[in-house]
Amino acid sequence: MTRLGPVAPRRTDTSALLPLGLDEVTLGPGFWGDRQVRNRTVTLPHIRQWLEKAGTFANLRAVAARDTAAAHRGMLFADSDAYKWLEALGWTGSAPADVIGVLAAAQDSDGYLNTHYQLGTPGRRWTDLAFGHELYCLGHLIQAAVAQVRGAGDTALLEVACRFADLAGDVFAEDGLCGHPEVETALVELYRVTGEDRYLALAGTFLDRRGHGFLGPGRFGPAYYQDHMPVRAAGTMSGHAVRALYLATGMIDVYAETGDRSLLEAAVTQWDAALAAKTYVTGGQGSRHVDESFGDEYELPPDRAYAETCAGIASVMLAWRLLLITGHGRYADAMERALFNVVAASTSDDGRHFFYVNTLQRRGPGPGRPEWFDCACCPPNLARLLASLQAYFASTGADGVQLHQYASGTVAATLAGGRRVAFAVDTDYPSSGRITVRITGTDGGAWRLALRVPQWSAQTTVTIDGTARAAAPDDRGYAVVERDWRPGDSVTLDLDMTPRMVRPHPRIDAVRGSVAFLRGPLVYCFEQIDQPAGADLADVAVDARGVPHVAGDVLEVPGIQRTPAAWGGSLYRDDDPAPEPGRQVTLIATPYHRWANRTVDAMRIWVPLEHRAEAGA
Amino acid sequence: MTRLGPVAPRRTDTSALLPLGLDEVTLGPGFWGDRQVRNRTVTLPHIRQWLEKAGTFANLRAVAARDTAAAHRGMLFADSDAYKWLEALGWTGSAPADVIGVLAAAQDSDGYLNTHYQLGTPGRRWTDLAFGHELYCLGHLIQAAVAQVRGAGDTALLEVACRFADLAGDVFAEDGLCGHPEVETALVELYRVTGEDRYLALAGTFLDRRGHGFLGPGRFGPAYYQDHMPVRAAGTMSGHAVRALYLATGMIDVYAETGDRSLLEAAVTQWDAALAAKTYVTGGQGSRHVDESFGDEYELPPDRAYAETCAGIASVMLAWRLLLITGHGRYADAMERALFNVVAASTSDDGRHFFYVNTLQRRGPGPGRPEWFDCACCPPNLARLLASLQAYFASTGADGVQLHQYASGTVAATLAGGRRVAFAVDTDYPSSGRITVRITGTDGGAWRLALRVPQWSAQTTVTIDGTARAAAPDDRGYAVVERDWRPGDSVTLDLDMTPRMVRPHPRIDAVRGSVAFLRGPLVYCFEQIDQPAGADLADVAVDARGVPHVAGDVLEVPGIQRTPAAWGGSLYRDDDPAPEPGRQVTLIATPYHRWANRTVDAMRIWVPLEHRAEAGA
Repeated sequence: MTRLGPVAPRRTDTSALLPLGLDEVTLGPGFWGDRQVRNRTVTLPHIRQWLEKAGTFANLRAVAARDTAAAHRGMLFADSDAYKWLEALGWTGSAPADVIGVLAAAQDSDGYLNTHYQLGTPGRRWTDLAFGHELYCLGHLIQAAVAQVRGAGDTALLEVACRFADLAGDVFAEDGLCGHPEVETALVELYRVTGEDRYLALAGTFLDRRGHGFLGPGRFGPAYYQDHMPVRAAGTMSGHAVRALYLATGMIDVYAETGDRSLLEAAVTQWDAALAAKTYVTGGQGSRHVDESFGDEYELPPDRAYAETCAGIASVMLAWRLLLITGHGRYADAMERALFNVVAASTSDDGRHFFYVNTLQRRGPGPGRPEWFDCACCPPNLARLLASLQAYFASTGADGVQLHQYASGTVAATLAGGRRVAFAVDTDYPSSGRITVRITGTDGGAWRLALRVPQWSAQTTVTIDGTARAAAPDDRGYAVVERDWRPGDSVTLDLDMTPRMVRPHPRIDAVRGSVAFLRGPLVYCFEQIDQPAGADLADVAVDARGVPHVAGDVLEVPGIQRTPAAWGGSLYRDDDPAPEPGRQVTLIATPYHRWANRTVDAMRIWVPLEHRAEAGA
Repeated sequence: MTRLGPVAPRRTDTSALLPLGLDEVTLGPGFWGDRQVRNRTVTLPHIRQWLEKAGTFANLRAVAARDTAAAHRGMLFADSDAYKWLEALGWTGSAPADVIGVLAAAQDSDGYLNTHYQLGTPGRRWTDLAFGHELYCLGHLIQAAVAQVRGAGDTALLEVACRFADLAGDVFAEDGLCGHPEVETALVELYRVTGEDRYLALAGTFLDRRGHGFLGPGRFGPAYYQDHMPVRAAGTMSGHAVRALYLATGMIDVYAETGDRSLLEAAVTQWDAALAAKTYVTGGQGSRHVDESFGDEYELPPDRAYAETCAGIASVMLAWRLLLITGHGRYADAMERALFNVVAASTSDDGRHFFYVNTLQRRGPGPGRPEWFDCACCPPNLARLLASLQAYFASTGADGVQLHQYASGTVAATLAGGRRVAFAVDTDYPSSGRITVRITGTDGGAWRLALRVPQWSAQTTVTIDGTARAAAPDDRGYAVVERDWRPGDSVTLDLDMTPRMVRPHPRIDAVRGSVAFLRGPLVYCFEQIDQPAGADLADVAVDARGVPHVAGDVLEVPGIQRTPAAWGGSLYRDDDPAPEPGRQVTLIATPYHRWANRTVDAMRIWVPLEHRAEAGA
């Protein structure tokens, strides 16, 4: 029996591809496998400690003990931090009976469970739907319960979640919705686990109710929580980025189970629009600090990028759903970009420090990744994604297996008709672009192995039996090899790892005239600590005449150190200043995901491009 | 007897220049005179209506009536809105006995007066110094009282202010300070009006106590309220912009009366640093929405500019103090920039709508100036500045009169030794750059007339008795004419009003490769409504080969309409896209201060500069 992972559709005719189980894909040593181990062995215990320290568990214990005098500690949605941690544990196969027991004990007799309202303000349940986060917390409780069932085989939490979900179904039978979308996608998964239609119906109802101004303007206007227009009418992602992304995730899930194409089409439109005008080169989304929102089209300041870690995680979850439904590799490309450049960047090398905001530029020294946050949504969100990460890497279709993300490990799948196939993947991706797939099990019949050819790979070869040929991706972006496979057969994919100098769309005012460097899926950045003496990141430019050179995992980029003194301390000048004297320097770029692990100082992804020929030696 | 205006030093040896009285300068019809009339006849009554509507007066009446059951309405510092309005009225010579009577009645027997704390939470006085704004409100009460005394000759409010200030002196004898600087500058003015040394001493004490972490980190860190380092140690403006500017204003005022040069030098250093790296081309200051703060050096995004109206006002107040102390025209230049491009821009043509945030770019339609704000600091702040504006335009020194700002009107002054001189100014500045000064009264002896030559005026002539000569500004930036003046003598100054294409410092990433257009003191902007059909402000560039043409108050700028479709909907591209097809268009720029009076749509001050020669016709 396969242990299902996140997103396990009941209805299969709405999806081009089907997910594999948690135990059908394994990640071996390497970029992601190492991070998954670190997540399990370091980050999850770290989070448990902080849930204790921050009072999150204390809140639950106080309610369980009916200690009504206890004061709630932390943010009003702090319960969700514990739920995300429980979800992560579930995906790793662990069911902490003690914590789940406290949760069951904390639940009110009618099913209600939210320590912020249970402690101190029980009479105020459901009185602040715009900002109260009660259904948001229910959503994360459900997702934890689903993970506990699927990953750990433990149904204790599911009973708690169902009781609360049933209460919500009664309370919201006629009206109401939550300011923070999340419960919609969760309810679809609860329907999938339980088979109870009412949960799917409630998810759809919450979607339908959105966008009619029910929540009021709040501090930031109704677009902040996507209540400014019906979900099917919105043509782009607006407002709070995490909210917008979770909402679209729920829309896709409801489509997957109901076949309501208007929801899918709206979600695709919104996602495409966000990618076309509201996404950083890292895949980060959310341009504004003040309301954690997407911002306007082409408003993508690198220095004030918000690019919240949770938005990156949500974008992976969303793109995965679209990938399953459409089978199109562009969604796997988007997942890859966000995984390597937001998810991986947000956690420190030690697995115990996290960025909430993933900026693309700093101008000088500053704080690095904290151990924890007052608003601690990000660390346990990372944990639940990492704990289930292998489930996002491969899938099956009617005719074979699709490999979407590249990491050493193994894949096993049951094809249509019950045929079992298996293969191993060997790669040190993304250090190199070579991925070798070796068939380890098959029944001898023909099936298709589909390997994603990332859009960024300009020249890709596929080598079979020692014969290399240029990959000819299908219309979904996959190199498909159909063979009568035998164990020991191998296919090698060689992706183009030539460094790429990337230009921004001319409408992105904030990085006009600048370029960024990428190699494979990795965005590179320039940290001050790596630059040669005298090269100040405030004043360097990339020499347009030069070609970046790969030296290990580092890029050496021909650059020019300019002299700001020529401006004489003025900020604006009427005259056209003579080109500043410059001298040639070699700038050093390293993968962005590693930044701020040594020092936290000036860093930039985008660097001005200098076309001037006369730069002195 | 001269009616003194804002900033009336008792000690004169610390200042190079001395202010003139409110009645010694008049503004006639023209840019500023018209605005001053509108302020008095439209804006001040508008504000009174809103103070009623928003509950600000109701709060005061409730406390005056000892109606302890009444709930406080509005922001916790709403009292200060009424005080700023009373200050404005004072400068216009009006003392509303009804409102002042309510204030006196609302004052507690020990002198305390703050309706937020008096209504509902009287026991919490002084418990939240970081965010409670109690001393901030006292500061504005004092300034209102000072204006009532100097401008309207009414001392009733002064008694109220002194009683509250004396209470504050007792409460804060040993420790404490306010999270929002303002009381410091106010206390110096109270000292000036009353001659009571204790008020000056308390101002100095509050400055000395700052920067030792007393206020705690709060939500945004101690730099938010300038409590991160001692005021004499800070080398630039940091944190909340209005707070930082008011604080420096207080530092200068304390210097002016005590001669403590360390305060002056720190304030000058901070101001110079802000102008060198943290100021928009409009003179606006404050780059971040989330905490209304200055932001980092060179962090000057035009689209997300905060540039709060109150910060612009505070910068005028600060620069005026530095101008008086140093006599240097660069401070008058800064005042002029902020007056024409922040203060003037913040108010609608009808005088009843106001910007709180003065952005330099919008990408599409959006909200315009509201009538009022929940946080209503800006409208009455504008009113108090406009009501006293003439006091900021001219000064006297030992040897004559200095004219700093240009507007039609009259100036009279008493020189050292008691000589009275007077002149009229005739100009339609800033439409033209011609300013004619005609002597209307003098005793026949020689004195110096100093006319500021703005730094932006590349070619300036002075014409006396029909003879024009190139202006030779002195080391403070003034064209000084010393004569044995007779009534009827005239001097004409011709400033260079050639449009200027201004480039940003290369470190300002956000507007790299773009230019702005200025003419005289005015920053121009491009509003979508003015552009020719087919010219979308998202895609236009300025043709580097062209020369802007002045057509009335409009600039016609040769431009290029680019074609974004060539990017095919992608945001980032590896290849170097061929230059997009472009066509030549004539872009229309109008003075920025007028923007958003017709439509609120795309607007930009900075436009990319296109050097490409091949743009098609």
